Amino acid sequence: VRTERLQALADGVFAIALTLLVLELPSPSGSTDLAHDLLAQWPFYAAYAVSFATVGIVWVNHHTLLDRMARGDRAFLELNLLLLALVAVVPWPTGLLAEYVREADGSAAAAVTYGLVMTAMSAAFSAIWLRLARRPALLRPDARDRAGAAVRRSLVGPAAYAVSTLVALVSAPAAFVLYAAVALFVAVSGRRGAAVPDQDEEVSRPAAGGR
Amino acid sequence: VRTERLQALADGVFAIALTLLVLELPSPSGSTDLAHDLLAQWPFYAAYAVSFATVGIVWVNHHTLLDRMARGDRAFLELNLLLLALVAVVPWPTGLLAEYVREADGSAAAAVTYGLVMTAMSAAFSAIWLRLARRPALLRPDARDRAGAAVRRSLVGPAAYAVSTLVALVSAPAAFVLYAAVALFVAVSGRRGAAVPDQDEEVSRPAAGGR
Amino acid sequence: VRTERLQALADGVFAIALTLLVLELPSPSGSTDLAHDLLAQWPFYAAYAVSFATVGIVWVNHHTLLDRMARGDRAFLELNLLLLALVAVVPWPTGLLAEYVREADGSAAAAVTYGLVMTAMSAAFSAIWLRLARRPALLRPDARDRAGAAVRRSLVGPAAYAVSTLVALVSAPAAFVLYAAVALFVAVSGRRGAAVPDQDEEVSRPAAGGR
Amino acid sequence: VRTERLQALADGVFAIALTLLVLELPSPSGSTDLAHDLLAQWPFYAAYAVSFATVGIVWVNHHTLLDRMARGDRAFLELNLLLLALVAVVPWPTGLLAEYVREADGSAAAAVTYGLVMTAMSAAFSAIWLRLARRPALLRPDARDRAGAAVRRSLVGPAAYAVSTLVALVSAPAAFVLYAAVALFVAVSGRRGAAVPDQDEEVSRPAAGGR
Repeated sequence: VRTERLQALADGVFAIALTLLVLELPSPSGSTDLAHDLLAQWPFYAAYAVSFATVGIVWVNHHTLLDRMARGDRAFLELNLLLLALVAVVPWPTGLLAEYVREADGSAAAAVTYGLVMTAMSAAFSAIWLRLARRPALLRPDARDRAGAAVRRSLVGPAAYAVSTLVALVSAPAAFVLYAAVALFVAVSGRRGAAVPDQDEEVSRPAAGGR
Repeated sequence: VRTERLQALADGVFAIALTLLVLELPSPSGSTDLAHDLLAQWPFYAAYAVSFATVGIVWVNHHTLLDRMARGDRAFLELNLLLLALVAVVPWPTGLLAEYVREADGSAAAAVTYGLVMTAMSAAFSAIWLRLARRPALLRPDARDRAGAAVRRSLVGPAAYAVSTLVALVSAPAAFVLYAAVALFVAVSGRRGAAVPDQDEEVSRPAAGGR
Repeated sequence: VRTERLQALADGVFAIALTLLVLELPSPSGSTDLAHDLLAQWPFYAAYAVSFATVGIVWVNHHTLLDRMARGDRAFLELNLLLLALVAVVPWPTGLLAEYVREADGSAAAAVTYGLVMTAMSAAFSAIWLRLARRPALLRPDARDRAGAAVRRSLVGPAAYAVSTLVALVSAPAAFVLYAAVALFVAVSGRRGAAVPDQDEEVSRPAAGGR
Repeated sequence: VRTERLQALADGVFAIALTLLVLELPSPSGSTDLAHDLLAQWPFYAAYAVSFATVGIVWVNHHTLLDRMARGDRAFLELNLLLLALVAVVPWPTGLLAEYVREADGSAAAAVTYGLVMTAMSAAFSAIWLRLARRPALLRPDARDRAGAAVRRSLVGPAAYAVSTLVALVSAPAAFVLYAAVALFVAVSGRRGAAVPDQDEEVSRPAAGGR
């Protein structure tokens, strides 16, 4: 299985999932105080921002992952379809969380649903790295010794989301803040993380080319 | 007709059909027991999973098919547009099946509709392979002697869906289970099937390059 | 302006417009005779098929057009965005036509709306060919002497749709049949038309390469 | 970060945002005077046209920007995701503006919302150019000395939208006209602007190649 075409499908699913998030933004119909009604639905804007950032980060990480691969196998492809199925589902819990986060009834159920989808999505990502760590032949030679570190780093996501989902049982708003914090933390740590491997690559590539 | 651009359109349609499935997931509005309401709509999650897996498998098979081609002709292109039209329609019977599978009235009609779309989609896929088997010049030289086997394998899909659609006339839930089983069976048999041709290719390609 | 990236945007818009058509298919909610209700909404299936085929044909023709180009200019790009804006709008008159074609009130308005969008879409396509015929430097050398023929052939579409739109003022069902007939006619004539230029290309390319 | 894959995601988001605009076009249901009802909702068509043109122009400019780049860095990628998040959100204020522009209550709120999204979108675009002007190493050598001019030109957008948003506080229809005028002005000035750099490039490229 060539990774280029998987990339095309993945880019498509990521782009569409990101864009379908907009359908969760409500347009108040027949409102008599539109400014007030628009401000009152701020949880929808916050949820849009958090979900867009989260899916955007997963896209960046998926992009890095495919870049380090030499080729794919069937199990890799199936795990990728699982990841894409979970990415594509994100707009649904996003709308749910935004609608119920301020309600007495249902806020916990909505926040737990959001957390479960995010936990599953990041766990699918870890599963892909685990597969690659077990089959180093799928990776580019210069990426093989870093597979273990990538697995460990990828486990931060599911762990953080699992904890946040437990918090959601007690307080939906607190979980909401945690979901935003996880996205922010992963973005910032990814920024640092990205700097180092890129330097590695710039070191290792000329070396490989020079032989 | 170059296959690269067909691939771009096909990847787009597959990615969007997969992602639009999420719009079939209902968000209970004004629910007083959201946890209960979310659990009660489990057929929607099951239908999402089955349809995503089915379309995902068709994408993998379509990818394999395009990989084996040397070039396309007009009839090939038209059969592909027919296939894409049926892929794009999948979200519609998915929502229908999920909504009606537990109803006394309408469950048979919904399950038959789902089955007919799936039968037509897999039959369109078989029709493409039939066309290629009749015009081997469209295939890469090393893929020509395997076209007959590909036609035979591709006929499993429409046959299995036709039988499941007949079952749907009697029992919608049983047909639902069958639709999931067909996807699972095709995925598992595809896994075995994929292993062999890939080895063939790795054997045939260096030979071709060595001449 | 490089044509590759326009191709990527165009393929995206075509793929999404094709796939959004499915959102026009209604899912009867709480139906007590679902089989009957599903059969009764056959105009939606017919409209889906006609619009999918029409947009699919425009995609094929757009693909042929980009293949013959050497490079684009700003006016070419703007005309393409206009074409894409009209392609993207197709799902809207499709749903309108399907909903109103059998109504006493509104069938003419719906069928005229559909016809106007189709006339504008095919006129935008002709305008692109007209621009290319006036600036032959944008075309590949071997495609320049065929630009006049392409302009003439591209004018069949807007003419046929303009006539169908006039018919829609009198009878919406008759116009509906005409819209389907135009798509069928263009597909069949395109099949013949496609055979000849492709042979030309196969003749002209080795000649160009041999110099 | 390679710019090719960012281009694929960006093209996807632009294509989907452009196409989702169609979902904002209302289909009057059960209308008894459809022709009248369709004509009465002209603000939706005008808003569709203005938003499609605006996003189309941003796509053209984004395309030019990526063409001039040598490589990306993390900050560049994050600013791009911010831009895409704002592009993807455009269908939402478009529907809002169309629905409320003729209402006594809410027209100002709707027009201000539209203006804020457009201001933020064009400001994100300026921020990308600012980043590139500060890190000229990210640009192709022949594009570096033109970065300052690109920053200045990119600031026209946010300035014009900020002024239009202030006008929206007083008169929503006047702001609507201004939003259309900004799109038209940017398109026309872009047409002139595009002509000059393209000539530069044609001059500078052979020179670079000749060394």
